[in-house]
Amino acid sequence: MERKRIPVVERILSANDRLAANNRERLQRHGITTINIMSSPGAGKTTLLLATIRALGETCKIGVIEGDVASQVDADKIAQAGVPVVQINTGGGCHLDATMVQQALEALPLDEIQLLFIENVGNLICPAGFDLGQDYNVALLSVPEGHDKPYKYPSMFEFVDVVLVTKTDLMPYMDFELAEFRRLVQGLNPRAPVIPLSARTGEGMEAWLEWLKTAVKGK
Amino acid sequence: MERKRIPVVERILSANDRLAANNRERLQRHGITTINIMSSPGAGKTTLLLATIRALGETCKIGVIEGDVASQVDADKIAQAGVPVVQINTGGGCHLDATMVQQALEALPLDEIQLLFIENVGNLICPAGFDLGQDYNVALLSVPEGHDKPYKYPSMFEFVDVVLVTKTDLMPYMDFELAEFRRLVQGLNPRAPVIPLSARTGEGMEAWLEWLKTAVKGK
Repeated sequence: MERKRIPVVERILSANDRLAANNRERLQRHGITTINIMSSPGAGKTTLLLATIRALGETCKIGVIEGDVASQVDADKIAQAGVPVVQINTGGGCHLDATMVQQALEALPLDEIQLLFIENVGNLICPAGFDLGQDYNVALLSVPEGHDKPYKYPSMFEFVDVVLVTKTDLMPYMDFELAEFRRLVQGLNPRAPVIPLSARTGEGMEAWLEWLKTAVKGK
Repeated sequence: MERKRIPVVERILSANDRLAANNRERLQRHGITTINIMSSPGAGKTTLLLATIRALGETCKIGVIEGDVASQVDADKIAQAGVPVVQINTGGGCHLDATMVQQALEALPLDEIQLLFIENVGNLICPAGFDLGQDYNVALLSVPEGHDKPYKYPSMFEFVDVVLVTKTDLMPYMDFELAEFRRLVQGLNPRAPVIPLSARTGEGMEAWLEWLKTAVKGK
């Protein structure tokens, strides 16, 4: 007797993944490169964005989506820099999702944006699991957090396209071992470059801006 | 016509809360004071614990439960300090829960412990929502994270019994406004004292140890 064939669906897109695919298609239609920025609270995401906006100036039209559990202090800072920004408050949620980003896109002038940064909720765990429609994922790890973090939060470092070590101006006061940090990241994710920088002093910003330009072109 | 009385159950304990109540009863039976320590990744929870163990020395029998997404680097450090320790790996989970703590208690010599520290997963959002059976909740906020964090992560600061500002030795290199941080915490949680300290230099440790002694006595 011939066995009946059972249909196997290899991957059923979850509701979030479907919405993320919609966001991605919409962003691509507008020719926008989208970058999801993730880190612990206080690792310097907003400060990096402000330094990046200043450095790129008129050469690239930037937009920003700010994600936070509560408040709009970060969006206020970005707005002062003169770029379009939308604040998402998750109201307790520990990461952004594709629905939230979809709503934020409604409020942005997409035809006037070439490079969209999504600053995720400060959290080194949950944001790594949720597609938003971005092209690239960036993790920041600040020097004061310590070089051992890839041991403890491997999913984040496995997931991203580039790792930025921020606040390198604090290196003289900390026991941060950069070579050991590179070794740990490369063990989890050999394709992600590690770029040390200080948005405060400007050290290393050139390498980050170079990575950004390649990302925008490479799309 | 008399209206029928509708029974109202004021609060149905969730499965986690029931297990947390069991843990609490068990810990109290052994005369143990239990303290849940929470913060962002790299804010200095383990360094504070090591300094606390050194400071209390033989005057108090300490035990530690270490919570991390992965690895046992923190438990290894605590074990070297000579106190009983159990490592919980959440395997991706962004906070400890009462079941995990229940399992950890099985592996600890409860009759030999007076003061149990539970170091939660590094995360300023999710751990605040889950009772483990602890007596007190402590939040750490490190100076490099910035004084604006209560705006963005209000639940954590509303929830705790004491707030420690760690890494105060970095104050000269940062724009951390301690008075503004106190004001924000007190707006959310007037009963929680704010104690600035540096586990590295020892500055402020006396006030934290004093708080701990009162907590153990006050139970």
